[in-house]
Amino acid sequence: MARRIQEVLLIETRHRPGTLASALQVLAHHGINLEHLHALSRERGWTRWELTVEVTPAMLEGALEELAGLADAHYVGRSDRVFQRHRGGKISVRPTLAISTQQILRDVYTPGVAVVSTAIAEQPELARDYTIKGQSVAVISNGTAVLGLGAVGPLASLPVIEGKAALLASLVDIVALPLAVEGRDVDALVAAIAAFEPSFGAILLEDFSAPDCFELESRLRARLSIPVLHDDQHGTAVVVLATLLRVCRRYGHDLHSLNVGQVGLGAAGIGICSLLARYGCRSLRGTDIRPEALERLRALGGTPDTLAGVMQRCDAVVLTSGVPGLVAPAMIRPGQIVLSLSNPDPEIDPIAALDAGAAFAADGKIINNILGFPGIFRGALDARATAITDAMLFEAAEALADLAPDDEAAPNPLDREVHARVAARVREAAR
Amino acid sequence: MARRIQEVLLIETRHRPGTLASALQVLAHHGINLEHLHALSRERGWTRWELTVEVTPAMLEGALEELAGLADAHYVGRSDRVFQRHRGGKISVRPTLAISTQQILRDVYTPGVAVVSTAIAEQPELARDYTIKGQSVAVISNGTAVLGLGAVGPLASLPVIEGKAALLASLVDIVALPLAVEGRDVDALVAAIAAFEPSFGAILLEDFSAPDCFELESRLRARLSIPVLHDDQHGTAVVVLATLLRVCRRYGHDLHSLNVGQVGLGAAGIGICSLLARYGCRSLRGTDIRPEALERLRALGGTPDTLAGVMQRCDAVVLTSGVPGLVAPAMIRPGQIVLSLSNPDPEIDPIAALDAGAAFAADGKIINNILGFPGIFRGALDARATAITDAMLFEAAEALADLAPDDEAAPNPLDREVHARVAARVREAAR
Repeated sequence: MARRIQEVLLIETRHRPGTLASALQVLAHHGINLEHLHALSRERGWTRWELTVEVTPAMLEGALEELAGLADAHYVGRSDRVFQRHRGGKISVRPTLAISTQQILRDVYTPGVAVVSTAIAEQPELARDYTIKGQSVAVISNGTAVLGLGAVGPLASLPVIEGKAALLASLVDIVALPLAVEGRDVDALVAAIAAFEPSFGAILLEDFSAPDCFELESRLRARLSIPVLHDDQHGTAVVVLATLLRVCRRYGHDLHSLNVGQVGLGAAGIGICSLLARYGCRSLRGTDIRPEALERLRALGGTPDTLAGVMQRCDAVVLTSGVPGLVAPAMIRPGQIVLSLSNPDPEIDPIAALDAGAAFAADGKIINNILGFPGIFRGALDARATAITDAMLFEAAEALADLAPDDEAAPNPLDREVHARVAARVREAAR
Repeated sequence: MARRIQEVLLIETRHRPGTLASALQVLAHHGINLEHLHALSRERGWTRWELTVEVTPAMLEGALEELAGLADAHYVGRSDRVFQRHRGGKISVRPTLAISTQQILRDVYTPGVAVVSTAIAEQPELARDYTIKGQSVAVISNGTAVLGLGAVGPLASLPVIEGKAALLASLVDIVALPLAVEGRDVDALVAAIAAFEPSFGAILLEDFSAPDCFELESRLRARLSIPVLHDDQHGTAVVVLATLLRVCRRYGHDLHSLNVGQVGLGAAGIGICSLLARYGCRSLRGTDIRPEALERLRALGGTPDTLAGVMQRCDAVVLTSGVPGLVAPAMIRPGQIVLSLSNPDPEIDPIAALDAGAAFAADGKIINNILGFPGIFRGALDARATAITDAMLFEAAEALADLAPDDEAAPNPLDREVHARVAARVREAAR
């Protein structure tokens, strides 16, 4: 199954009843769901629409060919909306104080800054009060496992870590510094990242590939006295734990004794198994095509199994395989909890899983680590934590489980109040 | 002579004619100049004043002792104004686009960002358009030569590089990332800084001590394909060149044949001699107590001399010795140009130099590198320059010489238009 990517298409329809419907019918023939649609303009009796879809190249080609046969609609081309939203980068840096007079300049720069530097030299802890160190998170990637794209390199990872930095800034007012780092050698990466520790209150590692990500994170944690968190492992794990807690509460299950299966034991899968094991889940099965991944599962106390075995034996299955359509509806067990998290194409569509008898199903659009990392880092900074502890991660997951509205699988990730509440509980847990 | 530092004092005077005058008279007895003064509050017939002064501990102690003898004035304590202006750090990070809807979230983060990452992986130059790389400058220090404070370390350098980042953000809208780096080993510093090249459009090195700063900069320049500039060397040099150009214009001198003397051959002094030599100044003398510094001067084609020799023989003298009061008024030659740049205490007060017969005199408050680096970096980014060339530095200096108002030694550093004009000329020179 080819990977679907997001495309933003421009089409024009004559301003008459039914013309847009006909065009959308064509997309439907080719199995294309609409993600978003809006009217851009109307001129000389034609309306221009911008359609956001997720398609394979073949789906798109077929739909455009058929669209060309319509008299009252035509394809204009791709929209550059997404690129425009990235133009010039996604973060800006602003001074916290308007440097509008010589006197302010002389306080924030020379000679005034010398007093602050001297105070910090004498009492390093003051850096948390009088520099960005109390507010800053480095978002670092070497681009070896970017989204579903693979090892596209540090420069191509920059839009992703900037996006994460923009979210940290937007949701929890963190001074987030996106830093793309060159290289794959763990020794060199540890040395380079550790060298810049003085500037950072915490470090978020992003899109480092397994298995190097495990060693990189553990060595940085051992060496640095600030929190280090590889989000692909732990951020996703927190949000999965939150969802399982919530679903267990709804169906009266006990998460400790639930049979949980993990399909795909890369960074995210191992992170999930590890967090669940530490939380006290006693029955964990997992599967992966790589023998060394199964070894890592065994080291966590889990049981290797086949895909079919996991699907048959487990009450809840978490899928992070990166393989679209891996799970056929026939493999779903009645009453099963199915978290199918590969983005943008899940292993099984949640609707199909529910139709096949699942009690609960969700994909990576809902169970997304954007719910976890902002509050975790804000709480860690506020507590001046030197590490992210299990207690902090468990508290973040429980806060998220509490915060989801009754009829939803997860809280609204764009609600700053959600992140503030997670942060408050993480801060308490850190103290 | 003990070093003067900025102090912000709170005193209260009875609300009656002459009470503030008496208090200020006491400061005057102890040789204290007022840098700034304003009224904070008035309660129960007493006015509270905030006074900004630059004093040695002995000057301050003497003044406070005498102040205690006044009936209608008393010392309250230090103001925390400077610290308050640094609280929480001096920069914030903001998203360039309000992430207010799911659709915007899905464009700037997953899944939309995958399209941008893919485009950059295929065509790396696109990173200049669609990430911060086209706008970002890393401001890096290891804290080995911070202001006049010496090797206070990376954490204590953070307020300084944050100040510089805040100025880059405020004056020329640069995404300035303050990065304090641990360590003095040049090999390790080059490796650590070079590893993060993908995120940066340019690098500003700040407060690295001589002689390591020379090797660090030249190795980074050789290795990286983005501009690298050690501001202490070249930023100050550009502003000195601008001032000399302007003064020569005013007095009808030819800078190429002017006898220029440089007192203090550290990072700034060597940077000044080097830029002047490359600009075509044929007669350069210099002095320093370190023999290896004199060797560096010789390598640039300059002539080592004594302090007395430089002061006697040179038409223009630039002082960056870090030694307050090094030059007695009697050493000034009539008609001499004197740039006495050590901060906060110059080698000779400009007023004293003028009184002793200098034709022109200025200190580091006026001849400050804040005039240079913002426009140089903005211009370099706008030109997508891969290095800072001499042509760019000369153009920056000439732009600054042109921009100073007729009756001033230098343009206003807080005027964004000044930096925009410097940037435009640097950009042209880069092309």
